[in-house]
Amino acid sequence: MTLPHLAVSCPAPLIDLAGRLADAAGAVVRRHFRTPLAVDDKPDMSPVTIADREAEAAVRALLAEEQPGHGIVGEEHGATNADAEYVWVIDPIDGTKAFITGRPLFGTLIALLHRGRPVLGLIDQPVIGDRWTGALGRPTLLNGAVALTRPCPGLAPAVLSTTSPDLFGDDFGRFRRLADAVKLTTYGGDCYGYGLLAAGFIDIVAEVGLKLHDFAALVPIVEGAGGVITDWSGRGLHAGSDGRVLAAGDPRAHAEALARLAAT
Amino acid sequence: MTLPHLAVSCPAPLIDLAGRLADAAGAVVRRHFRTPLAVDDKPDMSPVTIADREAEAAVRALLAEEQPGHGIVGEEHGATNADAEYVWVIDPIDGTKAFITGRPLFGTLIALLHRGRPVLGLIDQPVIGDRWTGALGRPTLLNGAVALTRPCPGLAPAVLSTTSPDLFGDDFGRFRRLADAVKLTTYGGDCYGYGLLAAGFIDIVAEVGLKLHDFAALVPIVEGAGGVITDWSGRGLHAGSDGRVLAAGDPRAHAEALARLAAT
Repeated sequence: MTLPHLAVSCPAPLIDLAGRLADAAGAVVRRHFRTPLAVDDKPDMSPVTIADREAEAAVRALLAEEQPGHGIVGEEHGATNADAEYVWVIDPIDGTKAFITGRPLFGTLIALLHRGRPVLGLIDQPVIGDRWTGALGRPTLLNGAVALTRPCPGLAPAVLSTTSPDLFGDDFGRFRRLADAVKLTTYGGDCYGYGLLAAGFIDIVAEVGLKLHDFAALVPIVEGAGGVITDWSGRGLHAGSDGRVLAAGDPRAHAEALARLAAT
Repeated sequence: MTLPHLAVSCPAPLIDLAGRLADAAGAVVRRHFRTPLAVDDKPDMSPVTIADREAEAAVRALLAEEQPGHGIVGEEHGATNADAEYVWVIDPIDGTKAFITGRPLFGTLIALLHRGRPVLGLIDQPVIGDRWTGALGRPTLLNGAVALTRPCPGLAPAVLSTTSPDLFGDDFGRFRRLADAVKLTTYGGDCYGYGLLAAGFIDIVAEVGLKLHDFAALVPIVEGAGGVITDWSGRGLHAGSDGRVLAAGDPRAHAEALARLAAT
């Protein structure tokens, strides 16, 4: 598998900063994990806690100190200076349902967009201590070691993963067609599934309803490990994407998955 | 919530031994986790690896040294002296599908039966380092601290968990009726879900197809935390149970769940 975008690169000091942003969020998240927390419902009925809000605030405070000219788009506290050349996109706890039920497979997502293009992404699991780092022009790292997707020539031998069958709504039939064609489907995991794909343990992840803060960090991680990540029509992901995401470790499995997902 | 069976107790040296058995299995499992492993399909098409086999062998070797008169029933290496007064029931890796896809929510299950009755159970997650210990007459412990289920007056506010919607077969309609009545359903986790229930983060777990080595360890853990665990008809679990398992942290939620699961 070839690593794309080797001609471009993300500045090393910004990669270092992203790691410190994840450290700051992780300290907050670990403090609240498996403690009694009030769970509020947001307007879209997704749950949120003080841990989500405080973790994002910690990231924002550090960014304000270190890169006051950069923009920030956060899931919990909104957009600041979103027209800047560099914009950080933050999901302090991706997988809040996992977080509030004590399952350590949620993650902090930190992405950096340069003129709208994701050039850096982190998935950080602060309880287990797993961290994926993807940066344009560099190989993806899992806990400091190079992560690579595994070969998967098609759907028949593939392991598919998704967070929950209940999230697909009207797209459930399309998902089911894909799931019926693979060897094994595993459930649960939110961003963690994309990390496992980038590390060669899962072949395909298919989900819907993802927003920019959910997928921006995943793009450099999956691509830098040799994988492909697009919407369900094969188009690259961007701020205006429709929220359907299909990632595959091997382009051959990605192509077959697209065909299965194609609406009849 | 009252703790049942306070009049009976499990001998402390056997609880200590169970911990050392889990230590022995965990050392093997951690060594193999996220390494390339050949995955074989067993006759029932469930996957198995060298890690499953070696972890169970390590447990058996320690038992042979320390309690040669006890019986052993293991998922991978079968039954030895199964008519003994004390019989250990071992599932070296419950959640092999999670294990082979790099997700650290599988667990080692160790149960001790006294004249057929589960008097001791351990769930050990050796990567994260979570260990639940339940013993007749003692409160359930999570990592050494008392674990208690949380109150849940019925299904409407309940969090339900199950490993995969694909495992229910003909029982899917019954599961769906239950899932439609709760607030939130989470997926993935195998034995880990029962541990989270015993620690008050999940209210209900419903699954089918469980064998003695899957559920024997769960009984003392769930009951010692104040919960209820039965089959889908409300009967206590035993070696001849039909594999349908319903656990709830609060007897009120358990009663409502039984009613939803009742075949129409």
